[in-house]
Amino acid sequence: MSALSCEHLITMHDLTVKDIKLIFDIAHSFKEINERPIKKLPTLRGRTIINFFLESSTRTRTSFEIAAKRLSADAVNMSGSTSATVKGESLVDTAQTLDAMDCDLIVIRHKYAGSPHILTQNMRAHVINGGDGKHQHPTQALLDLYTIREAFGTFEGLKVGIVGDILHSRVAGSLVEGLTMLGVQVVLIAPPTLLPAVPSAMGVPGGPPVICTSDIDAVLPDLDVAYMLRIQLERIEKAPIPSLREYSQLFGINARRMAGMKPDAIIMHPGPVNRGVELSSEAIDTAKNLLLYQVNAGVAVRMALMYLLLGGDADGAVA
Amino acid sequence: MSALSCEHLITMHDLTVKDIKLIFDIAHSFKEINERPIKKLPTLRGRTIINFFLESSTRTRTSFEIAAKRLSADAVNMSGSTSATVKGESLVDTAQTLDAMDCDLIVIRHKYAGSPHILTQNMRAHVINGGDGKHQHPTQALLDLYTIREAFGTFEGLKVGIVGDILHSRVAGSLVEGLTMLGVQVVLIAPPTLLPAVPSAMGVPGGPPVICTSDIDAVLPDLDVAYMLRIQLERIEKAPIPSLREYSQLFGINARRMAGMKPDAIIMHPGPVNRGVELSSEAIDTAKNLLLYQVNAGVAVRMALMYLLLGGDADGAVA
Amino acid sequence: MSALSCEHLITMHDLTVKDIKLIFDIAHSFKEINERPIKKLPTLRGRTIINFFLESSTRTRTSFEIAAKRLSADAVNMSGSTSATVKGESLVDTAQTLDAMDCDLIVIRHKYAGSPHILTQNMRAHVINGGDGKHQHPTQALLDLYTIREAFGTFEGLKVGIVGDILHSRVAGSLVEGLTMLGVQVVLIAPPTLLPAVPSAMGVPGGPPVICTSDIDAVLPDLDVAYMLRIQLERIEKAPIPSLREYSQLFGINARRMAGMKPDAIIMHPGPVNRGVELSSEAIDTAKNLLLYQVNAGVAVRMALMYLLLGGDADGAVA
Repeated sequence: MSALSCEHLITMHDLTVKDIKLIFDIAHSFKEINERPIKKLPTLRGRTIINFFLESSTRTRTSFEIAAKRLSADAVNMSGSTSATVKGESLVDTAQTLDAMDCDLIVIRHKYAGSPHILTQNMRAHVINGGDGKHQHPTQALLDLYTIREAFGTFEGLKVGIVGDILHSRVAGSLVEGLTMLGVQVVLIAPPTLLPAVPSAMGVPGGPPVICTSDIDAVLPDLDVAYMLRIQLERIEKAPIPSLREYSQLFGINARRMAGMKPDAIIMHPGPVNRGVELSSEAIDTAKNLLLYQVNAGVAVRMALMYLLLGGDADGAVA
Repeated sequence: MSALSCEHLITMHDLTVKDIKLIFDIAHSFKEINERPIKKLPTLRGRTIINFFLESSTRTRTSFEIAAKRLSADAVNMSGSTSATVKGESLVDTAQTLDAMDCDLIVIRHKYAGSPHILTQNMRAHVINGGDGKHQHPTQALLDLYTIREAFGTFEGLKVGIVGDILHSRVAGSLVEGLTMLGVQVVLIAPPTLLPAVPSAMGVPGGPPVICTSDIDAVLPDLDVAYMLRIQLERIEKAPIPSLREYSQLFGINARRMAGMKPDAIIMHPGPVNRGVELSSEAIDTAKNLLLYQVNAGVAVRMALMYLLLGGDADGAVA
Repeated sequence: MSALSCEHLITMHDLTVKDIKLIFDIAHSFKEINERPIKKLPTLRGRTIINFFLESSTRTRTSFEIAAKRLSADAVNMSGSTSATVKGESLVDTAQTLDAMDCDLIVIRHKYAGSPHILTQNMRAHVINGGDGKHQHPTQALLDLYTIREAFGTFEGLKVGIVGDILHSRVAGSLVEGLTMLGVQVVLIAPPTLLPAVPSAMGVPGGPPVICTSDIDAVLPDLDVAYMLRIQLERIEKAPIPSLREYSQLFGINARRMAGMKPDAIIMHPGPVNRGVELSSEAIDTAKNLLLYQVNAGVAVRMALMYLLLGGDADGAVA
């Protein structure tokens, strides 16, 4: 029933390049609607969309909820504290229960990698991975890719640096996959302890090689995009980073580093930023920083994804 | 204004047999709508329905919320942690406050038996008991009865066994009442410590006698329905059950016990199941097990109840 | 775009007297709609309204949510526990993020005075202060003023006493400002430790003088309105009140004190009441007590405010 080549979005390689481009085209028109005073389409009226968030989240849950509501779907939130997981119900039973309620689409965020996949094995409903452990966060990658395409008009010839805790980042997991699918050259920039042992294994087979470095200053002048991952402050005690101050000096973008970037290079971040850590205030407030554009595109991209998974076609009709 | 003989549903004996059959007829048509891609009726547009859940719950709260939204009502969730009960506000004051906001219907789940009744004394709004302490859970009973009727086409001549902690179960409280209203013979199956002292007091006056036993194997071959109550693991330490393992051996349904059941007998459970305790994996995955049918019927039955309490008639019009 | 003279409502002096009267006129017609079976207007269809409550609340959050839904807006709840504040995201970043999602209006409740103002500096969206620390709670004041006007038909010549912990009350903060804007004479009644050092500083410049006393019996017979603030039981240990019993005897309204009030004087309370503390049961259940009228008016006043901030005009059209 999906208008994409997949019924669920769990990892970026569920999608083809053609799928990604279709999502972008639909997102583009939804983005225009989101700028109107009346941001509402009747497209998914009568569809039940469940946001099942077992990790706390503002941005992502709100983005999905707004997306569902703007398409007129019935959006229902379920969070960890109120869910039957408290009573020891397994994910399989929850999946089957929600399916029995004739839910059409479920967005799941879960601390264990693979949880969204378990849902797909136990539901007829479409499943969107809203972030699973350290595995993937594909809608973040889609909105990032959308932002890059809008900024440059093309993916051809671009070089994207991803800076931070690559090893434990589901954002990086999805983004590297997406970028290499589209032929983009990726440089991973981090302390050696936070880099993958086999970088190219993060990209897709046949894609451009994925390069690693621990010297941001050596590569920054060549980058079109500096994508700064969020340092998980709540995990910093266990992290192999000596201090925030040192991390900021070695890997953060500040006014000095910005001065060495290409004139039309952009800075991206999945948010929320640790001000003064990944980015200095100058690097947040510069026009180069597309953080808020990413957030804005996120609603439109999620609307497009819901619309297409539920069978919507390019002419605005839903099967 | 209600199309039923009651304005509120607090216990099963608020309903007449005629009411129950009307609810089933309406639920049947809503169930068909729930199978369509566009699951939406304009029936309760502009009505305000509040889900006031002071105990954590996934299934029941979500089922009610979906039911309200599919009927186009404005559904508002209030949970314990955010409610004024934190500030020491009494239930009476909450009832009066919600009434003053012109709420039309409130669904309440509360750990104290009698709480829903207190609401009815202090509100003009219709009240549905979503489970109160160890007292009643009438919408669960209604969806169970609906499932039984769909499975057998009639209630006549059926024998239903209810297995588990009868004494502390609000599900059993409502179901025994409902079954005996409809003339169904009920057998309560549990360790002696979990059986009521006067079993027939659980049924309605003039109904068939309610029988007790602690020997499931003696009665299982005669049952049309084996209704397995959930063991409350969180209360197991205080429960008069030596161990889960022993409970499972003495009262659980497994492949061996299933083999001795009538060919068309069914297994039911209010969910979520403790896999391997009340039911073995074979007894969960068998076609005999109507657990997911119950969940599915639950949304339709709750839609029907909301619709009828708010004055809807059999022709689809709301007074 | 707002139809009021302000784009945001943070404190009462954001409004002009003309604004207040316009809000009341619109609220009056919305109040009539709220009494109908179908309480729904298409006015704010396609607008995104976010209820961002960082302090627990039943009444206020529910009132705003119902208001938004009755105007057909897409209402999204965000609470403290699920918000990015858990991850250390600053209020500024949250504001910018929600703005990037094209949210039209945000209602914020926050324990720090000034938080709503910070939002206005970082968002295009309209901001309504749903209560900030000990500062202001302007929608409470608006619904209180609406109630007073409905009770007396005019503000002219009225004398309003506000009783309780004036010093720490955001309700008093907004109400004294609102009353003095409308020329109403205000008497603050409390133990000396809970009275402001410069009472008139709570009123607007040029308004009638604000008077203080610790002797309720001396002024009660002259009051048209006795507005009883809620004693924050959760803060009582730190409060400079010897005991609840003494507070009740010195400042509570009971049958004896009611007998000395003007025949048409009214009692008001922002709710929830501590029964037996601020008000005896007689003083709660009397027809003089307009507590529930206040709650009822609250939904209509909040609808009016949302409608006008988002550009609605007196003819029912939204710009």
